[in-house]
This record gives sequence, C-alpha cells and structure tokens, in this order.
Amino acid sequence: MVDIATRVYNHNWKIDPIVRSIIDTDFYKLLMCQSIFRNRPDTRVVFSLINRTTSIRLAELIDEGELREQLDHVRSLSLTRGESTWLRGNTFYGKRQMFRSDFMEWFEGLRLPPYHLEKRDGQFELTFEGAWPEVMLWEIPALAVLMELRSRAVLKTMGKFELQVLYARAMTRLWEKIERLRTIPDLKIADFGTRRRHSFLWQDWCVQAMQEGLGDAFIGTSNCRIAMRRDIEAIGTNAHELPMVLAALADSDEELARAPYDVLADWHEEHDGNLRIILPDTFGSEGFLRNAPDWLNKWTGMRIDSGDPAAGAEAAIRWWQDRGEDPRTKLVIFSDGLDVEKMFELHARFHGRVKVSFGWGTLLTNDFRGLAPGDALAPFSLVCKAVSANGRPTVKLSDNPNKAMGPADQVARYKRVFGVGAQQPLKVEV
Amino acid sequence: MVDIATRVYNHNWKIDPIVRSIIDTDFYKLLMCQSIFRNRPDTRVVFSLINRTTSIRLAELIDEGELREQLDHVRSLSLTRGESTWLRGNTFYGKRQMFRSDFMEWFEGLRLPPYHLEKRDGQFELTFEGAWPEVMLWEIPALAVLMELRSRAVLKTMGKFELQVLYARAMTRLWEKIERLRTIPDLKIADFGTRRRHSFLWQDWCVQAMQEGLGDAFIGTSNCRIAMRRDIEAIGTNAHELPMVLAALADSDEELARAPYDVLADWHEEHDGNLRIILPDTFGSEGFLRNAPDWLNKWTGMRIDSGDPAAGAEAAIRWWQDRGEDPRTKLVIFSDGLDVEKMFELHARFHGRVKVSFGWGTLLTNDFRGLAPGDALAPFSLVCKAVSANGRPTVKLSDNPNKAMGPADQVARYKRVFGVGAQQPLKVEV
Repeated sequence: MVDIATRVYNHNWKIDPIVRSIIDTDFYKLLMCQSIFRNRPDTRVVFSLINRTTSIRLAELIDEGELREQLDHVRSLSLTRGESTWLRGNTFYGKRQMFRSDFMEWFEGLRLPPYHLEKRDGQFELTFEGAWPEVMLWEIPALAVLMELRSRAVLKTMGKFELQVLYARAMTRLWEKIERLRTIPDLKIADFGTRRRHSFLWQDWCVQAMQEGLGDAFIGTSNCRIAMRRDIEAIGTNAHELPMVLAALADSDEELARAPYDVLADWHEEHDGNLRIILPDTFGSEGFLRNAPDWLNKWTGMRIDSGDPAAGAEAAIRWWQDRGEDPRTKLVIFSDGLDVEKMFELHARFHGRVKVSFGWGTLLTNDFRGLAPGDALAPFSLVCKAVSANGRPTVKLSDNPNKAMGPADQVARYKRVFGVGAQQPLKVEV
Repeated sequence: MVDIATRVYNHNWKIDPIVRSIIDTDFYKLLMCQSIFRNRPDTRVVFSLINRTTSIRLAELIDEGELREQLDHVRSLSLTRGESTWLRGNTFYGKRQMFRSDFMEWFEGLRLPPYHLEKRDGQFELTFEGAWPEVMLWEIPALAVLMELRSRAVLKTMGKFELQVLYARAMTRLWEKIERLRTIPDLKIADFGTRRRHSFLWQDWCVQAMQEGLGDAFIGTSNCRIAMRRDIEAIGTNAHELPMVLAALADSDEELARAPYDVLADWHEEHDGNLRIILPDTFGSEGFLRNAPDWLNKWTGMRIDSGDPAAGAEAAIRWWQDRGEDPRTKLVIFSDGLDVEKMFELHARFHGRVKVSFGWGTLLTNDFRGLAPGDALAPFSLVCKAVSANGRPTVKLSDNPNKAMGPADQVARYKRVFGVGAQQPLKVEV
C-alpha cells in the first residue's frame, strides 16, 4: 500500500535537502566550537572553500541555483529539541555534560551566518565571514553539500538499474574491505568520512555496515547526527583551525611560535583522557615536538594527519621515549588518506609498540573510484578552511608541502619561525 | 511514515508465499495445457520431483512443515480477473485470442490438485497425480517453491548487511554479464529462468535489469506473471512432456516411433510462425530428424536443449540444407545451461548462418555461485517430470545420456525404436 499522506507531504519539498540537521557535522567541530565560544567568541574569521583538484570544474557540473538552495536550507536549520537533549544528556568519551549550559543555550539559538558565492574560472568561490564560533560550523555542511551535489550531477545521467548496480558495486567493495579489516587483531577504527562523503545516506550505510561487520572494533563515527541516530559513539578531538587562527592573531614572531602550545593549554584545561590528543603537524611536526612544553608529554596520544604516516608515528615514538614516556601506553591515531592496505601496513608495524587507532575518511565514505564512466564519481580533494582571522591571513604548513596554504611571504615567515626545513612532497589523493 | 494499515495487514500472513499467482509459471505450460485440454484431457499422469544433485539433501535443509504450507498456498490460488483479462486480451506471438474461450473458462475454475509428500534418504519424494492438464501445471510452482525454500534456508543464517552485500554481488555479477552481452550485435535473448530461480523477487529484478540493460535485444520472459507485471512479451513454445507422455501411451513400437511426430502434427494444426519450433532431442535428435516427415521442414526453427549445442545446431543446419531449406531463414534457439561465454561462442559460430536466439535460464536467475559460505547458494539440478501416463512409465533419452530418465528396460526399448547409438555424456551443470 502506498502511504498517500507521505507521498503528498513529500510533494511539498522544494528540494531534497543534503544536510538535514545542524549536527550532521563532525563531533570535533562542536568540541572546538565550545572552546572558541568560551575563549575567543569575538574573533572574526573568513572560511573559504578550496578545491585542490582543479581538474574537476565544480561550477560547470553543479547548478548555482541548486547550490544556493542547499546552502539556504542549511541556514534554515537549528538544533532540534531531541538533538539538544542528546548533546546535553549523552556521555562523550566517558564524560557526562561535555557541553556546558551556556554553550548549549547559545547553540540552540544559532542559525548559520550568510555565505558569499561567486563563480570564477569554472570553480565556485564560496566564503563565510563572521564570528568564529558561528562561521566555523559552516565547514562540514558546505563540504557535504558540494560533494553530494557533485555526486548527484553525475548520478542523474544514469538509469535506474545502472544506479542500483553502482551502489551494489560500492557496497560490495566496502564489504570486502570490512572482511579484510576483520582479520586485524585488536583493530580500533572510526568513521571520519563526513566531509568527503559521497552522500549522507551512503555514509549512514557505511557506518551500519561497519557496525555489523566489525562489531567492537568499530569504535564510532565523527558524525554527530549518525552517532545519535545509530546510538554509537561520537568521535573526534581537535583540528588545525585552532592553531591556524591563533597563529594568525599573534602580534609578534614570539607570540606566533607560542601559539600552537597556547591552544593546547586551553584544551588541557578543558579536557582530559582520550580527548588529549596532540595534532602536531599544523606548522611542521618536527619543530612542534622539539619545542613542546613538558606537560604535553603526558597527553594521551597523537594524531598523524599529513606526511608519511609511518615516519610520523616513528617520530612520535622517539619523542615519547626521549621524554621518558612509555610509547606502549600512548595512542597513535592515523587519519590521513587511509585505505585497507595502508592500515594493514601501519598496524603490522606499530601494533604492540603503541596503541593504534584509525580514523578512516574518504576511502570509507566515498570510494566510488572506477565505478562511473570517466571515473566521474572518484573522490577529490575539497577543503573548507579558515583563510583569515581578524583580517590577517592564516597559514598551514603541515608535513606535506603539497598541503601547505597561505600567502607566500607568510608561509616563508612561518617556516622560519617554526624551523621547518626541507619537507618531502607527497601526492594529495583525497 | 510507516503505513500502519500495511503493517497490520502483514501481521495476518501466516507465511510469506513464494508463488503468489497461478500464472507465475512458464508460458509454454499454458500453451501445452490448452493443447492437452483439447486433445488428451483424460490422460492420467504422475509428475515427480527429481533432484539430480543428490549431494544437496533438501529434506535436511528445508522444514517439511514449511514446504507443506507453501504447497498448500499454491493450491489456494486461482486465476484472478486481471490475469484472465490479460490472457484473453493480450497478443502473444503477434496473435490475438491465443487462448480459446473453453480453455479460459476451465482455467478460471482450476485449483491445482493434491500433492503427495514423503521424506526419504534426505530427499523429498514429491508427486502429483491426476488429469494431465491439471497435474502438469504443478511443475513450475513446485520447482520454484523448492528452489526458494532452499535459498531461504541458507539466507536465514545471514546478517542484514551480509544479505545486502550478497545481493549487491549478485546484481553486480548479472550487470557485468549484461554489459558483455550488450556487445553482441543483433542479440536476441529471453529469460527462461523461472524453474530454477533463486527467488521470485530476484527473477523479477533480473528481468528488469535485462530490460534496461539490453533494450530490444531482450525479447521477453517465459514467466507469465512477470510478463504481465512488466508489460513485456511472454515467450515459450513446447517441451519434452508432450512426446514423453504420448510415447508412453503408444500401444506398439510402431506407434511409439510415430508419437513424437503425432505431437507436432497437433501443434502444427494449432500454431504457426514462431510457435512452430521443433524440439528434437526427447528421444535423440539424430533419429528424430532422419525420420521426420516433410511438413516439418517448413517449421520456423529448432530448440537445442541437450547435448553439445554447437553440434546440435550444425546438425540442424545440415538437415535443413539436405531438405532444400535455407538455414539463414531458420531460427535456432539455444536453451541448455547457457552463460555469457557460451553465448558468445555460439553467436560467433552461427550468426549469419541461422537466426540465433537464446533462452537463458538458471545462470540468469540463479547465479549465486561462490557468493555464500560453502557455496550453499549455488544452483543445482532439480526437475519435475511426467514419470508415468495412464500407468505406463515415461522415458526421456535426450542428447546427453546423463539427462536420460525412465526404467532401464524401457530406455533400452526406446533406444532401439528410435535408433539411438552411442551418445556423448556431458556433465549436467544446472
């Protein structure tokens, strides 16, 4: 029987919304948002979309009107009562009331600020400007909207059975990955794939497949909406935007050099346990670790998000050893460009030497490589980053010069201040 | 929104029926049924289930109670008004009113006769006894019920995502076959897979995939219910049961020798065009063709259903040439154990020499080989055949001695009467 009411209700949708919840975003954005809301509420930032895969001409694939409708829809969203209850009442990382009342009250009233959209040279220039705690929440929905509109542009050329077989192939591929991962002893793996997902429904499928296929080895998802819907752990700590913005605000080279540690000092005060994860690569991991204050030695672990992951983990192990820490008690989270083979390699090399964990992103939630004619659904490298703070440009160096961003003179200055020498360029896949 | 009425209505199902329509059967059964209803309505026959794959112990896999429920459900079915309208009003093989009024009136009142079921040595002994036009309609639903109960027995051990990936793999496999078939010029192919299908829903999916993937090269399905539901051609002509039963009824060797031609004489009177398809192999193709009356030369084509298909088609071509017919005007329908590679070979060899057509069965609607642990969903060789007529045993020789059936003394007699010498044994795959 067709449910007539449902069909008639669906007639009212002007669009099929890509983002249907303000917490369809990464958990660490909310943690960072709360921190920024307390410590830097008045900082003005600009976030900007950057398509690192310039061969994909998004503005030729995606209709500007449809993009505006989706972005306008995101602006119409606000925290629902159920979502608020979940954020207030749930246990995150073993802790109750992770989100303070003042933050929750502000978040309940929040609508995302306006966006600015232009087309240039086949790409969209999409920027968000305003108070940091508001603007930063655009990052994930903006990426998810662009990624899924690109998917839809390709999918709408396909027949009904072509579509079904497309998803059949993608499902089979993911399941075969899961079957292989199942053979890794003591595996710990989380979904980090919101930002580059093929679509919301696909991410939700992937998460459920990981639940059934991996059981306890699947430790959760970065996506709050899916964590809530599927009753699993929300996962994530902090990201590059904190040191990037703090560094941009520095008034001197001395302040700049201190900025990455000041950020973590705030974090240290707010969080403990598995939330104390060092992300060392914003301005080069080597200098960051060399100059790190002693209180960072005791942090729980480190996330390796650029550069050669094995080299990064070896450096982390040496650093802990040099500082009298037992690496076997430390957690290393790999989160950059992972797929099954790389996870096998990294696990084989580091299992037993540190606690190993994986944050699996794009190749979990968007591995449609080779599945559409012209490889038109292959994932690509789209980011949405803070590009300025209080009018000053931000800089990211990372451990891979191909991921560096910022004006050339500022990049040179940061390299000097953070003592970054020659770096090995690695291809940015996704 | 959940449709509450649907859910509540579904509570009432005692079983999930496998066969939901009395025309969920092969079109040729109805054509033959009409012919038998006119010419031999009072013949008493026994049909019996024969599992040629004895390694699959059906009675250990399938609960007898569930089997009885499904068979009882088949007995509760009768022709619906819509189905009757379709059979009466539709065009089959370009002809209106293929089914005569007296037959339709009888069919509208029909319920399938009782069955007899016992377990022996891990197998089911399932037999149907009664008037030929009624009993013969059990063949396809009985096979479909057994095949699908076996699938369900395996599937119920699997998790939700395992199931989804199982079907994803099967869909991908079929789609890749379709993509390959698409490259064959002037392909003509029909679904002949009802009797060995994995399940009804899967056959229906396969048919729709063929429709989208092959367009006009897909000429129809043997399944009446699916032909009606998907608004496509119903395909099929006649089968071994006609000469088998008529031969068993013969009172002398002379009558026996004539029986296969008498059957076709009746058919000749009833049908023309593409329904005049010779099925020569019931008692050996070689003798059948050698002794065939001249009026068979003009028939439209031949169906090759056992033995080496290339050898069978070459023999057909030689036969037509010897009798002054142009083979290029004749249709050869291959229908035995086909898969994509074999179709490529046969098409390459015979395209241009005859009109080539394929009736694709088990490996269209049940290619789950290698997809379940222990290959527990691989198709197997189950048939339901007339084993006696008016108390006398039936015999089938076919062009493959591994497909022969009947009591040894009768097999020897038939071989003598039909002049069958040494035959090449071929493995019966499906």
